[in-house]
Amino acid sequence: MNSNQISIFDTTLRDGEQSPGASLTSAEKLEIARFLARMGVDVIEAGFPAASPDDLEAVRRIALEVGRPQPGNSNRFRDVPVICGLARLTHSDIDAAWQAVQFADRPRIHTFMATSPIHMRYKLRMEPEQVVSRVKEMVAYARSLCEDIEFSPEDAGRSEPEFLYYVLGEAIQAGATTLNIPDTVGYTTPEEFHQLIAGILEHTPGIEKACVSVHCHNDLGLATANTLAGIRAGARQVEVTVNGIGERAGNTSLEEVVMALHTRRAVFNLETGIDTTQIARISRMVSNYTGIPVQPNKAIVGANAFAHEAGIHQDGMLKHQTTYEIMQPETVGVSRSRLVLGKHSGRHALKAHLEEMGYQLNQVEIGLAFERYKQLADKKKVITDADLTALVEDQAFQSQEVFSLEGLQVACGTMGMPTATIRLRGPDGKQHTQAVVGTGPVHAAFEAVNAIIGVPNTLVEFNIHAVTEGIDAIGEVTVRLQAENGSLTKRTSPQNDQLSARTFGGYGADTDIIVASVKAYLSALNKLLLAKGYFGQPETPLEMPRALELNSATNT
Amino acid sequence: MNSNQISIFDTTLRDGEQSPGASLTSAEKLEIARFLARMGVDVIEAGFPAASPDDLEAVRRIALEVGRPQPGNSNRFRDVPVICGLARLTHSDIDAAWQAVQFADRPRIHTFMATSPIHMRYKLRMEPEQVVSRVKEMVAYARSLCEDIEFSPEDAGRSEPEFLYYVLGEAIQAGATTLNIPDTVGYTTPEEFHQLIAGILEHTPGIEKACVSVHCHNDLGLATANTLAGIRAGARQVEVTVNGIGERAGNTSLEEVVMALHTRRAVFNLETGIDTTQIARISRMVSNYTGIPVQPNKAIVGANAFAHEAGIHQDGMLKHQTTYEIMQPETVGVSRSRLVLGKHSGRHALKAHLEEMGYQLNQVEIGLAFERYKQLADKKKVITDADLTALVEDQAFQSQEVFSLEGLQVACGTMGMPTATIRLRGPDGKQHTQAVVGTGPVHAAFEAVNAIIGVPNTLVEFNIHAVTEGIDAIGEVTVRLQAENGSLTKRTSPQNDQLSARTFGGYGADTDIIVASVKAYLSALNKLLLAKGYFGQPETPLEMPRALELNSATNT
Repeated sequence: MNSNQISIFDTTLRDGEQSPGASLTSAEKLEIARFLARMGVDVIEAGFPAASPDDLEAVRRIALEVGRPQPGNSNRFRDVPVICGLARLTHSDIDAAWQAVQFADRPRIHTFMATSPIHMRYKLRMEPEQVVSRVKEMVAYARSLCEDIEFSPEDAGRSEPEFLYYVLGEAIQAGATTLNIPDTVGYTTPEEFHQLIAGILEHTPGIEKACVSVHCHNDLGLATANTLAGIRAGARQVEVTVNGIGERAGNTSLEEVVMALHTRRAVFNLETGIDTTQIARISRMVSNYTGIPVQPNKAIVGANAFAHEAGIHQDGMLKHQTTYEIMQPETVGVSRSRLVLGKHSGRHALKAHLEEMGYQLNQVEIGLAFERYKQLADKKKVITDADLTALVEDQAFQSQEVFSLEGLQVACGTMGMPTATIRLRGPDGKQHTQAVVGTGPVHAAFEAVNAIIGVPNTLVEFNIHAVTEGIDAIGEVTVRLQAENGSLTKRTSPQNDQLSARTFGGYGADTDIIVASVKAYLSALNKLLLAKGYFGQPETPLEMPRALELNSATNT
Repeated sequence: MNSNQISIFDTTLRDGEQSPGASLTSAEKLEIARFLARMGVDVIEAGFPAASPDDLEAVRRIALEVGRPQPGNSNRFRDVPVICGLARLTHSDIDAAWQAVQFADRPRIHTFMATSPIHMRYKLRMEPEQVVSRVKEMVAYARSLCEDIEFSPEDAGRSEPEFLYYVLGEAIQAGATTLNIPDTVGYTTPEEFHQLIAGILEHTPGIEKACVSVHCHNDLGLATANTLAGIRAGARQVEVTVNGIGERAGNTSLEEVVMALHTRRAVFNLETGIDTTQIARISRMVSNYTGIPVQPNKAIVGANAFAHEAGIHQDGMLKHQTTYEIMQPETVGVSRSRLVLGKHSGRHALKAHLEEMGYQLNQVEIGLAFERYKQLADKKKVITDADLTALVEDQAFQSQEVFSLEGLQVACGTMGMPTATIRLRGPDGKQHTQAVVGTGPVHAAFEAVNAIIGVPNTLVEFNIHAVTEGIDAIGEVTVRLQAENGSLTKRTSPQNDQLSARTFGGYGADTDIIVASVKAYLSALNKLLLAKGYFGQPETPLEMPRALELNSATNT
């Protein structure tokens, strides 16, 4: 990597997935990782393998399927991405990380330990010297397993600079190859962060042997500016998430940093390997899978980011394009044209158009999509790209069905007795029907589902939006729920050593928002049932080559 | 104002309201302006009076009702805020602005003209010298009406610095008292913007007589950082919007700048007059009225901004509070406790609780709220602050009713014949009933409303979300629609001299999301009907004291 190249380290699947309620299934993680690899991300932090056996499995699967050259996996002009797993500085965490990432062509273990006075005293309850010796010992251990080791001094933004230089120097000597400097609590200003990175580059012994990375949080709205300040000071890796998701106010946005470097090339004189035209698509995928909406005024990927107040003539906008537009929507994959297919378009036109939009569907999938397309065209006058995206994603990315929806009938209104009757086909092959009165039609329908399935759960979030303009729009629903008990669904958090309940997300799209809601709820419940192992195997177990399994056992 | 004081200039009602589809009614604007005054905003840019007679009226009303000391209007320890109106550099715009703001105790006219080569050539079609002489002439004219004149060189971020110093110097000589430097297209980096402001302070003749202001946009995610860079360079006024709303990726967020200055006081050593504990409430009000949602990972005001992944013990969080929390939720008015009232709480408890939440309801309103509260308590086990907010806002801030909802009955499901029957009472006092089959229950219900009212309109946006956790949550719906024709609803945009269609927003809340949707749709349609003057007077005309009207005529 030359000195004008910025390495993009995406942690959507690790730090992003720590957002409240954003949990992803293995299949969703794999899909996102594939997309990140295709669009040119350099390093994918695929998860925190010590969190749970499921998490380890998900990282291992990404290492195997995205971390090795496979047809369609990577941009053919580039290497496969580095696949990285997070580990606290313990043998068991590092072992779990290595167990997961070793199958990648370019594995990395990312270790971390807090170095700020407040974290050492209250979280770790360790003396600074104890922290240093743990860093030396455990980074060396990680390095004995894996050649590519990243080390992060957590809460570096509030750490004492002299101590930081010392710890980082020891980490380099113990074998760390990337030193990542996190502003864990989003506290620093760009000037302070610039100074921090410049100080580290100047004073850390052996720093010329390592790559310096920055990892910022957005608590004060300064994540992008701090990241760019770090780059100016000499950092050459940036840790980011799609849509800036992450705990609290989230992490630095991939799209903002990439497009700032791209749009202001003349100022920064730096390159990334990102295909910017994929930004809108990955933004939408991450929003759908995590259930975390993107506000319309979000930079780069918000629905209004390129819009002008309605009513400006098309001519006027084109004439004045550069007067109010510093980026062209096409650069990030947003198309200016919207209307695409008519009611009488055929299967071939649909296939061609979906391919243009980036969807590679097989014969069976195209058949299903076309059938749904015709149904939609009967209901809706104008079908747009957004409609097609909703249609394809609703179809392609549903979880394995344990219970499937056979029928729904709802009556509601101002009389105040909203009633839903639902029919599901269960794993026993039989039909189950229940009618329930609720506080509203969605409540009634969800309770009817629960009356059939009978697994206690809590609805954590429920979101509906219309994906397309107009009164006959498709409604898109995302839900997130948690099982009310059961240790199988708990995960360990890397930051606080405590267990946290796992959340399951579901997605549904339909012109009838109650139907879309039930689809989304059922899809989330099916994920929960699979994860709990109530029906069949727990969540899509990986077919592991026997040889690799032995290899893994030897190394750990 | 001392040199450590930063003046907060809020342009939510002007630049924020230019967001696609964010149009607000006069009543909503007044409500927001009142709240901004109460929380300590120094300058309220109340609108662009030349846009339309309605816009002028809305600004005039704010000047009269918020710009003068009135019981409950302003913080009793401060002056009333400056009320500002925007004007292009023409006699008619300046006249309209003065007509609107003159009734305030502290009126301001904000004039602007583009100074970048690209804007002068393609938008203005003027030579630089023509621009300078227009600035001199028109700023002087504005100053002849009003003592407080702000001038903005539009697209300053892409203007030639020497030209900028020259134009600004001429504006000061012509009487401008505040010079606002906008990065209109969100193009600059913090370093560049710092340099721009420092250059202006160093090289502009007479700059010591004026206040320098900054106005940034968030296209590259750098608005907050650029604003802080401008402050460091010496700017003492910042132009911001609540939730960072505005065209494209929006303006600088009030809450981010205020909380960065507040949280990092030791670094900036600057003060604002803002009562930070009102931030969460104004954020919610603006989001509800504009229909623009706030993403959960938005800094300061996002739903997750202070949340931690579920499952962390309360004890643990309190113990580690400062390890991951740089601001306390209470500082911005987010309460840690959620559960509040039980089913058996009385009217007095409700009133006391609502007052604690900042709602001052009169006897009649409390009566209505209590009735709805009891209905809700029958349906829902747990009633939270969020439920109460939805309940009160749904009740208190509905538009004047032209048509009112008497009954709704909906049948939908997977049979694919969603049907809505609706009964409205019209301005004729009669009941009207229609049944319509649609593509979904919302579509059917809206079309049934249209079948009765018969005013062609386009639904521009439709948003539902659950305001509270749990399966029996209240659904909140915001819609935005436009009339399909009718010049009465057009408004002029300050940036492009073209007319743009006016958008009407509506809000509804109910445990039945179809009922909530109809309430929201009807509320938006009622606003449209009133604005078009179909029924009764156009939108709540102001009772203008006769003397003031004469005064106004004399001055323009």
